[in-house]
Amino acid sequence: MADSAAKRVGADESTQRVKRAKADNENGGGEGAKDPECENVLSEFKTSTVLSDSAREKTMFLHGKLADQEAVVILEKTPIREDSLAELFTGSRLKLEMRNDIYSTYRLQAPPQFNEIKTTVVCPATEKHLKKYQRQESFLVEETGEDYQSITSPYIQKQSFSVQWVYNILEKKAEAERIVYEDPDPEAGFVLLPDFKWDQKQVDDLYLIAIVHQRDIRSLRDLTSEHLPLLQNIFQKGKEAILQRYNLPASKLRVYLHYQPSYYHLHVHFTKLGYEAPGCGVERAHLLADVIQNLQSDPQYYKTRTLYFPLRADDGLLGKFKEAGRL
Amino acid sequence: MADSAAKRVGADESTQRVKRAKADNENGGGEGAKDPECENVLSEFKTSTVLSDSAREKTMFLHGKLADQEAVVILEKTPIREDSLAELFTGSRLKLEMRNDIYSTYRLQAPPQFNEIKTTVVCPATEKHLKKYQRQESFLVEETGEDYQSITSPYIQKQSFSVQWVYNILEKKAEAERIVYEDPDPEAGFVLLPDFKWDQKQVDDLYLIAIVHQRDIRSLRDLTSEHLPLLQNIFQKGKEAILQRYNLPASKLRVYLHYQPSYYHLHVHFTKLGYEAPGCGVERAHLLADVIQNLQSDPQYYKTRTLYFPLRADDGLLGKFKEAGRL
Repeated sequence: MADSAAKRVGADESTQRVKRAKADNENGGGEGAKDPECENVLSEFKTSTVLSDSAREKTMFLHGKLADQEAVVILEKTPIREDSLAELFTGSRLKLEMRNDIYSTYRLQAPPQFNEIKTTVVCPATEKHLKKYQRQESFLVEETGEDYQSITSPYIQKQSFSVQWVYNILEKKAEAERIVYEDPDPEAGFVLLPDFKWDQKQVDDLYLIAIVHQRDIRSLRDLTSEHLPLLQNIFQKGKEAILQRYNLPASKLRVYLHYQPSYYHLHVHFTKLGYEAPGCGVERAHLLADVIQNLQSDPQYYKTRTLYFPLRADDGLLGKFKEAGRL
Repeated sequence: MADSAAKRVGADESTQRVKRAKADNENGGGEGAKDPECENVLSEFKTSTVLSDSAREKTMFLHGKLADQEAVVILEKTPIREDSLAELFTGSRLKLEMRNDIYSTYRLQAPPQFNEIKTTVVCPATEKHLKKYQRQESFLVEETGEDYQSITSPYIQKQSFSVQWVYNILEKKAEAERIVYEDPDPEAGFVLLPDFKWDQKQVDDLYLIAIVHQRDIRSLRDLTSEHLPLLQNIFQKGKEAILQRYNLPASKLRVYLHYQPSYYHLHVHFTKLGYEAPGCGVERAHLLADVIQNLQSDPQYYKTRTLYFPLRADDGLLGKFKEAGRL
């Protein structure tokens, strides 16, 4: 998700071991130094691994060697262009794949000029680039109430992840000027502020976070009917504050919690409906409205329920589930 | 989100006005009736409007005319395939666009066979199809159990959307060769087959649909604890069939229902975890594992619960909710 577009990183000089001379000679040494049409520098690219790819976005990130240097090659098919449609339909080959009722599917082979692949080469590439583009596989974990007690809770406790940055916000030691709304009540109160992912330039990708003042609620798993006043307060006042500040009504908002969360201090996500925010998938997100209803009908719902969530291959918690034979 | 890939709908018979004879004659009259390579039915397609497109997903939804009939044509570039990389790099033309330090970008023109466009034709297309594929704003609707009884259920009934294409599949009148697995039991049975959105070339974007043999379950709202054997059967056997056929274990799958669904005949989505399938967001998707648990603890869970879902601005159901003062 975060990996899904070409992005430059701050290169770490110490790991770069720049050996550019050779590549520069072979590739033409700079913009327009040779006729760019005439050479295919990639013909000698040797792929060693696929770092990541996206079938949805038609991208692929490759690690390999280019003239003896480490290189990353990023391929991304280009968007379909309206101005090419007429030629696309007349100049292509078409193969029927399936027909059922009014629906049929084909494979269309378009002339190369209408079907380009945007190619980005990073060479020489450093370890930092490889990590950046490397996709981590995820696994869906099934966590019963007992698993939480015996595996997850001890793991969280032991890691004692620092949430100092959260306390800094709650205490106005940092980001005070970013606060959109605050209810200072120590029990039901919270601070609402834009998420880092949102540049606040347009509401299309609106993303705010409500962080509760209470410090002993780690996640969804800790919630019982006791917390209903807190949750209802966040839901109500968060929506009101967003309407007032951004003129966006509740019917345009997706309000949810993550499980597992990124940090174990209770917080609620407010994102714009229609914006496919990272982490809004059904496997990780829980609508606040559903959480409230579930706690209303069963005060222990989140203590007893089996919860499902994805964990990345390198997540320590996944290791604990594997050790326990739960995967 | 829901707009971003080819998708079938329950067709509204009253607006279909099927005039198939001509199209059938011209297009070959059925699966494999003519050599599918020899004709390009799209060469006579005349685009009237772009209904929607996605630069991120490399898709385009077109409305136009095909042999005097209304048609929708959906274009989607295919994912980049690892097994084509060697030939892609040696057999393509490359144009340098930009070079800066260790980064350079190119336009790569690949041979047509490595650069196909998946093309779906809906012909004749109805108003409903046009609406389905037209980009539209969405609103989150809150539907209580009473709202379902008084607003949604009568609306669905009145529309009497045709699901003939579903019955064609269940009766092996169409797409029989695409079936991945079937449990023929009339009560607990289902047919598992690839969704239209998936070209089956790679498992990265695996997308299958389980369609139940029972014909009277319209959606999540109709489910009670009576349906637990059906749901558990789909969950279990669907996962087994996918493991066997695609070597993908349950821990790599996201298994869920939509509410509202696109068509009112119960079906379950199986997508690969990590693939951001359209419609997998928390506002529309319900994990089958959660549905099963919820029905186990409350047989009437989905009859009584308030459910939240997005509706597009032009959805007739949204109009009904507005009329009732529920938005």
